[in-house]
Amino acid sequence: MSTKPIQKELINGVDVPQLTQIIDDLTQNPNLAQFHFCAKNNWVSGGENQTTVNEFYGGGKKHVRSKPFVFTKDEPPTLLGHDNGANPVEYALTALAGCVTTTLVYYASAMNVKINKIESTLEGDIDLRGLLNIDDGIKAGYKSIDIKLKIDSNASAEVLEKLMAIAKKHSPVANTITNGTPINLSLV
Amino acid sequence: MSTKPIQKELINGVDVPQLTQIIDDLTQNPNLAQFHFCAKNNWVSGGENQTTVNEFYGGGKKHVRSKPFVFTKDEPPTLLGHDNGANPVEYALTALAGCVTTTLVYYASAMNVKINKIESTLEGDIDLRGLLNIDDGIKAGYKSIDIKLKIDSNASAEVLEKLMAIAKKHSPVANTITNGTPINLSLV
Repeated sequence: MSTKPIQKELINGVDVPQLTQIIDDLTQNPNLAQFHFCAKNNWVSGGENQTTVNEFYGGGKKHVRSKPFVFTKDEPPTLLGHDNGANPVEYALTALAGCVTTTLVYYASAMNVKINKIESTLEGDIDLRGLLNIDDGIKAGYKSIDIKLKIDSNASAEVLEKLMAIAKKHSPVANTITNGTPINLSLV
Repeated sequence: MSTKPIQKELINGVDVPQLTQIIDDLTQNPNLAQFHFCAKNNWVSGGENQTTVNEFYGGGKKHVRSKPFVFTKDEPPTLLGHDNGANPVEYALTALAGCVTTTLVYYASAMNVKINKIESTLEGDIDLRGLLNIDDGIKAGYKSIDIKLKIDSNASAEVLEKLMAIAKKHSPVANTITNGTPINLSLV
């Protein structure tokens, strides 16, 4: 860690000197780059369940929030639920939307590209015959996910396209989805 | 659609006759199985953004909730945010937790397996050097995701293992993550 005092300089709400410092620190000490995230889930009934997110490990230490984040998931009536929350495939779009946006904004800030506004829509198709095992040849998940971004910035379309390509490649959630990430289930 | 009156019979909170009816309907009319989900996202500042989920299309018609579900995402201070919400990779675990649980419960109900309780923990490691492009050889997303399930049920361990294998294969979110789902970004 540098002992120099760091001048706070916000670009797009991102503290760029701190971002540069983090990149330097993680380059010099890859152990600090190891992050471990977790969530606890409790089934309620039918299609309803509740997830609690609180702690994570990263930058060499454990972090605990001042209060946990709690999320209720449910299904709409047409999928046998009571609409007490968005459903899991909608939470997946929510995760992806946030990650692509944040990745794009952090890189824009590092490149000194000012962003005024970003709106995006995410859409994806699911054939329910996959979930219900009506046809074994049908993928249960999203066939693909389309993200349309409307970005208000003075940057050129070329720069914005470059930022989008970076976001697609380096966003942890986008990368998790596009790269076939293994999931291991075990009974305890 | 059958015109027979359907007796409501809840197993694990799931209306099994309705589930059976849905499977029959989708088998006979695959158009009803086509679902389209969407989310709208607005960037706030830095690592904070907000997603709204409301409408979806499925079973041959558009569905609109009585009020939208709104989710704030942010980063913790160590990742340059203000902890105003869970971060996107934690939302991804939340989505996965819900989908695996619901898929397991729906199949258990269809198989007449009574479930009293399901608790699960989800954990995954991310090397931040991927996000920050410090080393191009490092995956930006989760290396893998471990789901540990504690299931209170009279069913045998064999039956529970079978249900877990079904949930892993047929959960739309698990399937989206494990199968390398394409993401398309475009500027509008």
